[in-house]
Formats: sequence, structure tokens, C-alpha cells
Amino acid sequence: MVKVGVVGYGVIGQRLADGVALQEDMELVGVADVGPTLAVRALKEKGMPYDFYLAVEENREKTEEVGIPISGNLEDLIKKVDIVLDATNAGIGAKNKVLYEKYGKKAIFQGGEKTSVADVFFHGYANYEKGIGKQFLKLTSCNTTGLIRSVDCLDRAVGVDSVMIHIVRRVADPGDYHRGLTNALKVDPVPNHQAVDLMLIMPHVKATGVLVHTPVTHGHFITVFAKPKKKITKEEAIAIFKEHPRIRLVRIADGFLGNASIFRYARDLGNPRGDMYEISIWEETITPFEDHLIYSLHIPQESVVIPETIDGIRAAMEMQTDRLEAVGLTNKYLKIGGYR
Amino acid sequence: MVKVGVVGYGVIGQRLADGVALQEDMELVGVADVGPTLAVRALKEKGMPYDFYLAVEENREKTEEVGIPISGNLEDLIKKVDIVLDATNAGIGAKNKVLYEKYGKKAIFQGGEKTSVADVFFHGYANYEKGIGKQFLKLTSCNTTGLIRSVDCLDRAVGVDSVMIHIVRRVADPGDYHRGLTNALKVDPVPNHQAVDLMLIMPHVKATGVLVHTPVTHGHFITVFAKPKKKITKEEAIAIFKEHPRIRLVRIADGFLGNASIFRYARDLGNPRGDMYEISIWEETITPFEDHLIYSLHIPQESVVIPETIDGIRAAMEMQTDRLEAVGLTNKYLKIGGYR
Amino acid sequence: MVKVGVVGYGVIGQRLADGVALQEDMELVGVADVGPTLAVRALKEKGMPYDFYLAVEENREKTEEVGIPISGNLEDLIKKVDIVLDATNAGIGAKNKVLYEKYGKKAIFQGGEKTSVADVFFHGYANYEKGIGKQFLKLTSCNTTGLIRSVDCLDRAVGVDSVMIHIVRRVADPGDYHRGLTNALKVDPVPNHQAVDLMLIMPHVKATGVLVHTPVTHGHFITVFAKPKKKITKEEAIAIFKEHPRIRLVRIADGFLGNASIFRYARDLGNPRGDMYEISIWEETITPFEDHLIYSLHIPQESVVIPETIDGIRAAMEMQTDRLEAVGLTNKYLKIGGYR
Amino acid sequence: MVKVGVVGYGVIGQRLADGVALQEDMELVGVADVGPTLAVRALKEKGMPYDFYLAVEENREKTEEVGIPISGNLEDLIKKVDIVLDATNAGIGAKNKVLYEKYGKKAIFQGGEKTSVADVFFHGYANYEKGIGKQFLKLTSCNTTGLIRSVDCLDRAVGVDSVMIHIVRRVADPGDYHRGLTNALKVDPVPNHQAVDLMLIMPHVKATGVLVHTPVTHGHFITVFAKPKKKITKEEAIAIFKEHPRIRLVRIADGFLGNASIFRYARDLGNPRGDMYEISIWEETITPFEDHLIYSLHIPQESVVIPETIDGIRAAMEMQTDRLEAVGLTNKYLKIGGYR
Repeated sequence: MVKVGVVGYGVIGQRLADGVALQEDMELVGVADVGPTLAVRALKEKGMPYDFYLAVEENREKTEEVGIPISGNLEDLIKKVDIVLDATNAGIGAKNKVLYEKYGKKAIFQGGEKTSVADVFFHGYANYEKGIGKQFLKLTSCNTTGLIRSVDCLDRAVGVDSVMIHIVRRVADPGDYHRGLTNALKVDPVPNHQAVDLMLIMPHVKATGVLVHTPVTHGHFITVFAKPKKKITKEEAIAIFKEHPRIRLVRIADGFLGNASIFRYARDLGNPRGDMYEISIWEETITPFEDHLIYSLHIPQESVVIPETIDGIRAAMEMQTDRLEAVGLTNKYLKIGGYR
Repeated sequence: MVKVGVVGYGVIGQRLADGVALQEDMELVGVADVGPTLAVRALKEKGMPYDFYLAVEENREKTEEVGIPISGNLEDLIKKVDIVLDATNAGIGAKNKVLYEKYGKKAIFQGGEKTSVADVFFHGYANYEKGIGKQFLKLTSCNTTGLIRSVDCLDRAVGVDSVMIHIVRRVADPGDYHRGLTNALKVDPVPNHQAVDLMLIMPHVKATGVLVHTPVTHGHFITVFAKPKKKITKEEAIAIFKEHPRIRLVRIADGFLGNASIFRYARDLGNPRGDMYEISIWEETITPFEDHLIYSLHIPQESVVIPETIDGIRAAMEMQTDRLEAVGLTNKYLKIGGYR
Repeated sequence: MVKVGVVGYGVIGQRLADGVALQEDMELVGVADVGPTLAVRALKEKGMPYDFYLAVEENREKTEEVGIPISGNLEDLIKKVDIVLDATNAGIGAKNKVLYEKYGKKAIFQGGEKTSVADVFFHGYANYEKGIGKQFLKLTSCNTTGLIRSVDCLDRAVGVDSVMIHIVRRVADPGDYHRGLTNALKVDPVPNHQAVDLMLIMPHVKATGVLVHTPVTHGHFITVFAKPKKKITKEEAIAIFKEHPRIRLVRIADGFLGNASIFRYARDLGNPRGDMYEISIWEETITPFEDHLIYSLHIPQESVVIPETIDGIRAAMEMQTDRLEAVGLTNKYLKIGGYR
Repeated sequence: MVKVGVVGYGVIGQRLADGVALQEDMELVGVADVGPTLAVRALKEKGMPYDFYLAVEENREKTEEVGIPISGNLEDLIKKVDIVLDATNAGIGAKNKVLYEKYGKKAIFQGGEKTSVADVFFHGYANYEKGIGKQFLKLTSCNTTGLIRSVDCLDRAVGVDSVMIHIVRRVADPGDYHRGLTNALKVDPVPNHQAVDLMLIMPHVKATGVLVHTPVTHGHFITVFAKPKKKITKEEAIAIFKEHPRIRLVRIADGFLGNASIFRYARDLGNPRGDMYEISIWEETITPFEDHLIYSLHIPQESVVIPETIDGIRAAMEMQTDRLEAVGLTNKYLKIGGYR
């Protein structure tokens, strides 16, 4: 049993902890955060399913007042685990890395950290092999993770020459008060970082893209204008995407009118937090046009990176050396795809 | 075991079904809707935990295509149950009533129906006794249900003379595409219907109020300017509200910055769909001022009426004749308050 | 002096009236609407700069109560003019056409009407010549009008083979209460109507596109992935767009962060209503990539069609037979481009 | 002619400059800001109606590149004027005060500064006399300015004992990208600062209040639950408010459905920037209830403080010693009330 610790128990950290806890070949040792945040209070109200480690000593009193049992400090947690999933705010991971190195532990950082923090910039499906046995991995960000799922899927089927992408980005998660946008779109210079990141993971594909921030919370919307190496029909594209366990095909005609429909559907499925691990591609947007194939997809920004991060544990800890075996186990324990 | 059917499997109907299924002294016979809506597709993907009855015969083919097993039509469901929870769109309930009468079944309608549809306008805590043994009950709407919880609670403790209320209303639920508001507030004439409804349920309290629609989805925000029969301090008010199982006290200082914090917290609690049965009152808003007591609260519009509707089953079916025993059982099975 | 009447004094109609009033070779005879709408009340408060004709007789009393002088009914207005600008709600224009035919008058319909209502589907810059002398013109919709400005501009400079477009659409105008979207994106099937419409106006260009509705009010955001007939550099593209009087080049670096910056800038310019006749292209988005040229632009949905509609008057009334002379006069009187 | 300079040419500063320029007994010497902001670029595109002074020398090159003529630095402007309107960001005004003192000039600060920055906390209608001849005035903030207009109006008519207020606050102005909220309401602790500020200006009135931030941009919405010294009817209240030149009475029935209707109406009136100097009270909300009078009003946050700030010039410069004469002149030159 690989022993895993989660450092940073926020939007991503909570979901990583839940995801790891479902893996039958991993043990979640505990989670660490700075004090009695809302997420930690919720952990308490749920009866402490996970042990809590306090990363900032000054907050001990405040934390104990709320009745949260403290199992140790950050270093205590690090010492007990084989690998850390670092889901702290951007920039903190780089600081924590010193501790991981001190204790000779492996770690996986999230997309907010600089790529240079890690030995490998990692995506479970696209470059699993590169992560095998490495000490430090950095996951692609939420948008890039989902985007690459689809491009890698297409690339393995028919080859992809280049992609132009258009991202309509949500600006905040539900419950975020530290950032927001009100009745405004915001434009980023071209190319966006997701296109650049895609080329780091898939260096044989040329990419660029436009990104617009929009005042919504339930997921990003990406349109891909891909140039496949050979022409494919809409039906072929549907068949290719359908094969991928982490991609759903949805239809406007069935009631999936946009990002908010998918969020509602995930809630109605009974998924914890209304989360969805899969990206969704709208069938009505899949369109061959001249040399290109167009399709639009939904990124559930809070949960999309969970499967690929768990793939990263498998790679870094050399639990599986075969890519499909590894992602298949992650899928099985998370009940993704055929395992639903 | 009281046999219950849910007619209308939308935002409210799904939650009613789940709530009834948790009651150990009730049996959920099945749910009915018009066709393969997203909610029905989610039911299918979950493995059909509830039997499905098809209310509109023309949609049989479409429904079967999706692979949803059909257990019968609307009348088949009605015949099998003791009581129907009608959660159809506003106006449909009145039409369905003809069927309930035809088969001599009891029914509880939701807040969207006209009050005249029912024998009693019902609220579990405020007027349980009036519902006992009645054939047709109509629940208060989401805002009124939560509002009355707090006013009734205060009234039973110290007496309430009058209330002025100010509602900041969410305009849509997450996933609603049939209604919305963009960068606009909308004002209703005074008094709002919630104040009028409060006086129907609590005729000894004078009430009026202002309502503003705002472009958000995660719950209504109500401020009550109550005139208690005797002055009370902030601490007394906190103590009174804390006693009520269906009221939470929350603090801005703890991170509950607004409606979206509560939605996030409920998701992080692991509550199905991120729902919350309780209303939340912000401690920092509880303020005695001159003759009045001010306090602000959050209404989780999608789920707040579930407990009081289940109370309604207990009343209509004469399962309990004691108010506190009835609501206590509902709370116990829903794990509300001390039962958490 | 060509005599012009405006039928439908709403968002577009008001701006058409103001635009026509600025043309020194046209006379605005009056405006017509159904009753004392907010726009008509504003006309009154401004001191009735334009004569008002009442289109719905039943509203006479209500209109007079507000003190609005009535210069006649709809037919009275039609009889007095050479050409009608019909800016009524979608579908009404087709009904009004019977009256225009009855009196043998010309008319220009807006984008909401079916294309079959008119003899020509018209765009001032792209197909001016087709409108010359015709009785009935239909303008392209706001998105299509601005989109075609840019594609036609590029096409005349270097030739355009095909375009893929991505539209991020505002769902409502400021002050709209009859439509809206709240915390949701909405996807349309591919291709969107703007791509289809572009091919009607520019049949030698192949086009398709994706459209997403977003909950904002200050303008649409369109990205064009154009395939020019010959490769051009970013600098060449900037030079080409800069020549067009109805296109602005803006920079994120200068503070134009998105659609709302442009709205604010137009207000600060002192433009009536904070309107902008020009579309704006962000320099930082202009990107040659493989065979394509990418660029993103802003559509001021309330005012963008005004210049092209006035061009339509010039064509239909045969005021100018030369395209550039015609659009140049419109620009001059509206103070667009070099005339600022 | 009183010589006026505006320091800080942002949302408020631009409007102050325009307002002062309309006063026939004042001269606008110039405006100062830190560099070529969008507002300064708009000034340039308009042909430099006002002289520009550059407050940050390092930005000279950047400013000249854009072609903006520089008339001097901040101190140059201060030396030329009798009084400065300081509309810089919160906190900067306190720093600038050193310069105003150095040159012995008077100044009026906006609501963002601390009250201690000034000799008098000022409101044109409520305490004009206190500002007469003073060197440093601080204006009430936008919400408080509009709120006090209405409470002072009622107080002078029938006396006001206490007010409970409920503010639904807009979180950003159109075009703001540095702050925002997305699909969330945010609650402030009670009492809000507006209630506290009201008591500073009107010490004989007791006040408290609730404030909720909402994701909209077109104005605040305030409901006042006032306790007048004697009961008044709805009709009497309407008559009292109608007398006030800076208050509009509007009706939902006429189409004023909310804040966005008022913004649209102001645009359609042709008001520069779509601004409105007046607050609007909805007739359908004016409701006597028990000891209280309830009414709801709209605050146009970008422009509401302009008249009272100009009143402040009149007071500080001792241009008029009579309150009504002073505000009357401001109203006349701004075309407010009877002067429309």
C-alpha cells in the first residue's frame, strides 16, 4: 500500500484526498492545512474521516477551539508518507519542496506551480511513461488536462498536426470570494498558456489559442480546431471519443444545454460535491470543416485533474509501468467509464 | 409503512424522493415524470434506485430508447400509494388533483400552486396540527418555509408582534436555462407574497416586505426586522435560534462570507447535491435596535422545503399527532440537527 | 432630402433615429411605436426632438396621459416618408411589410426578420451594389455585420478562402428584463447562423462556427480563424485593419482588457448612450498560425448596425451608386474614422 | 470665478470635471492623473477639452507617446486653483493633503478617504452650513449621499426618529476589472458604515443597517425602514419626495423594473455616459407599516456625489451662505429637477 499525504486541503486537496481514499492500493495517511478553514470545519462536521495535520503552529489554539483533533504538524505528515500531493496555493508548493527533499519524499504539484518545480510535466494519458520513477511531478492545469485528454485521444487514433483552441474560462469556483468578474469578459494575449503547455506535453503538435474569462463558475468551455493528419468524419470522431473512459459524449438535444446542465446532472447523479471526473464533448459541435475537425468540450475545473494526479502517484511510485494498466486502475477505483 | 409517490421528478421532486427514501416509516413507491429529462437520465445512470412511471404516453418511445424501464403510467403510481407528493410545475398540480380525488388519495402540493388547491396551507413547525388528517396540503414556498422557521421559533420563545422582511432573491437554480437575469436587479411591489403568506400561516403576526431579484443561484438572503413582544439581547436571540434543529448559526468570521460559502460548505460536507436542509443565520447580523430585532438568513432554495413536506406526510397520514414528535422523526431520518 | 421614418423605437430604433438625424442629406420625419415605453418617455423628457406616431390606437389614452404629443398613426408616418427603417421586434416587420407595399414605400428590415422578407440581404461594405434601387433590404444582424466588416476588409486586401468563427455572445442588453442567463454558458449547435449568413453575403468564402451565450451585456466577442489566400504577417494584418474606418485597433496593454473596457471608453468619450459604431480588434490577438490568421474582435451589439443600415438607405434610394462614396458619407455624418 | 482643479481623473474625477465645467460661476483649470489611463486617452480623443497635468513624472514619455499634451505637474495645477477636488483612490487623498496644505489651498475629498482627513464630513443638503469657509471637506460616499438625501428630506418634512436600512450593493462599476463577484452574495457585519455615517451627518437620527454585495454594476438598491416622528400616508410621502430636486419618483408599472431600467433610461435621455444625478424612489415600495415608513431607492453610484461635491465648493469657498440658494445653483447648472 502506497502511503499518500495531501498538503493543502482546499478545492483540489479535498478532492484528491477523496480520490486517493478510493484507491484500494493506496492509503491516505492524512491531510494538512493552515488552520480551521471552512473545508477543515466540514471535515470535523463529517466526523474526521481523515487525520488532520496543522501546517501553521500559530493557528493551534483557533483550531482546537473548533474541536478539530490535530494529528501532528506538516513535517509529521511528510515523514509518514511515501508521496505528497501538494495542492497548496500557487507558489507555496515550491517552498514546501524543500521539506519533501529534506525527507527524501516524492511529490506531485498542481498546475499553479512553475513547471521548473518538477522533474516532469505530467499527464496520465499523454505521457505516463515520462513520470515513471521520478521524484517530482507537476500536473497540467485543469484546462490543459482536459484539453489534452481529447487531443491525445485523437492523436493516438489518427494523428494530429496542429490545434487552434478557444477557451471560455470560468473566473471563479462556487464559493470563491477572493476573485471574480462582474458583467465583463476579459481577453488574454495570444497564445494562451494552455496551448504552450500542450506543446510541452505533446511536442509533435503545433498549438496556439485564445482565452476569454467569463463571469461563471461551473466549468470552462473549450473549442478545439484540430488539424488531423487524415480527414475523419463526424461519426468516426464520435466513435474515437466514445472509447475514452474519461470523455463523455453529451447532446444539446438531450438537455445538456451548457456548462450548468453538466453541473446539475453531476449533482443529480449523486456524485460527491456534484463533481465530474470526465470532460464532456457536445456531439452537435463535432464538425469536420476543410482540413480541420472542430469540437467543443466542458472542463469541470474542480475535479478534472483528480484522475491524472492519481495516475501520477502510480507513475512516480512505479506501481504500474504500463500506461493503460495504470490509468485503468485509477478509472476502476474512481468508477469512471466502464466502471460506472 | 406509509406508501408515498412523487409526481414531478425535477429540482424539488428528486429531493423529495431522496428524503422520503430515508424515512424508515415510509416507503417510496416510485416517481413519475413526463419523459427522459436530464433528471430521469441521471436516475437511469444511477441504476434506477426508484421505479419510474411515465406521465405522458407519447414519450414512451423516446424514454425506452434511452433504456429507462417504465413501471407504469401516472395513474398506476397513484393507485399504489397512500399519498402523493406533487412537485410538478406551477399549475399542473391543480390539474393532477382531479386524479388524486378520483382515487381518493391524499396529496401535498408545493408552493407554486394556488393556496386554494388545498385544504390547508401547511408548515411543519408553525401549524402542524392544522394538517392532521387532511386530504390536501399545500406547502409554503422555499422563502416562506425558511422565513417562518425563524419567525415561529422567535414567536414561541418571546412572542412576535410584527415583521418587516427584505428578501434578496436568487433568480434561478444552478442549471436553469429557462429563466435568468443578467447584470440587473428587479424590484417587486410591496408587500411581497412571502409576507402575505406568513400572515396566512401565522395570523397573529403583522407582516410586510420588500423583494429584490438578483442574478445569483445559490440561495435567497432574507433580512428580518422583527418586533418581538419583549426586548431580547443578541445573546438571547442566538440561544433561541441555536435550539432549533433546522436552523444553523454561522459566522462571517469563520469564513461564511455569503450564500456561496454555504453552498460550498454543504458540498464539502458530502451532502448529496451539495444540499442543505437547514437555513443559516449569520451571527454578525443579529442586532437588537430600538423595538426591533434584526437578523439575516440564508435559504437553500432547492432543499429547504423537503423536511416540512415530509412533516406534511406525517400530519396528513396521521402518523403522529404531536408536532414535536413528528418533526423530530423527520429530523432524525434526515440527520438534521442533533442527529448529525 | 430623403425622407426617413423609423418604425419601432427600441434599442435599435432609437439609435437609427439619432443616426439618420445626423445625415445632412436625409430628413427624419418621425418615429413610431406602440405606446409610452420607457424610450418614448425619455423622448418626452428630452423635449420631443422627433415627432411621435402611435402604432397601436388602444394606447392613445395612456400615451396622452404621460403628455406625449401624437403626430399621427403608423400609416400617417409611412405616407410621409420615402423609406422606412423597420426596427420592430422579430416577426413584426414581416407584418408591417404589407403596409409598406400598400403605400409603395421602400423599407429596411433588421437582422431579426427572416431573410425572405427582403429582396436583398445587405451589408454596406460587402455588397452595397446589390442594394442599389431595391425596394426591400434586410440588414445582417449585429454579430454578422461586425464580423463581415473584418472578413470583407481582409478579403479585399488579400483574399479569404475560409473562416472558422467562435462567438462569445452577450445574452441581453443593459436594461433587458425579458431575457437573461445566470451563471451559465449555453452552447448552440454548429454551424451558428452568423457563419451561414456570412456565406450568403460573401458566397465565395466557406464558413462555419461555434457560438456560446454568456451572462454579460456589453458586447459580443468574436474570434476569427481565417484562411487568407496568401500568408500575411501580423504587421500587415494590423495595417489592413487600420485602414478601415469602421474598425478600431485596441491594445490590452493600453487598458482595453475586455468588452467592458470598450463600453467604459465609449461612455468616457461622451458618445451618446456610451455607444460605439466601430468594432474593435485586439492587437495582441492578431496571430498568424500555420495557414491561418487569428484575430478577436468586439461587437457593440446596440449600435454596430447603425452605419450599415444608413448605407442601406443610400443604396435603396440610389443616393450614391459608388460604394465607397456612400459609406464615406455615412462615416462623415456619423463622425466615424478619419472624421472623428 | 472660483478656480477648480480635479486631481484623479477616474470614474468620479471625470464626472466632477464635467460637472464643474457646467457651473457658470466656476472655472475648471485642469485635471491631473498619473499617466495615459483609458480616461486620459478618451480626453485626448475628445480633443482635450480640459488641460491635463501629469502627477507621476516617470510616465511623461508614455504619456507624450500617446500624443497627450501635458500642461504641468500636480503642483503646477494646485498652485493655479482655489480649491482641489481630490478624486484619487482611497488613501492617496490623505497623502495629497500635504501639498494642499503647503500651498494653502482648500480641498474636497471623496468618501473613500478617512473622515479624519477633513475638517467637516459634508452633505450638500443635510449640513451645508457646517462646510462654509472650511479648508478641508470630505463628502459622504455614494450610498450615504443618496440615502441621506431621502432621510434628510423626510426629516425636514415630518421629523425622523430612527432608520433601519438594507443595502443591496453593486460590487463594481461597468468596466471595472480590479474587483468583482461571480454568482455570489456577500454579507457585511451589522451595522454597515452607511448607517454609522448617516449618524455622523444627522446625529439626531438613530440608524443601523444590513449590507449585501451583489454581482451587478448599475447602481445600489437601498430600502429604508424609517420611523418618522409622526405617521404619514403613502400619498404624503410621495408628495414630500416629489418636492426634492435630486429625487425622482419612478414606477414599476411604467417600466422601471429595477436598477438596469434606470441606467437604460439615463442613456436614452442622452445624459453623458448614461449618468443620472438623481436618486430614484419606486412608488410601489412606499409603504406605511405600523410605526414605520418603508421605501426603496436606486443609487447611481458613479454620478450621485457630483452635485453634493459641487455644493461643497460653494460652501468651502463661501460662494453662498444660504443652503437652498447654493444647492439651487448647483441644480440649475447641472439641469437637475425643475431645471430639466
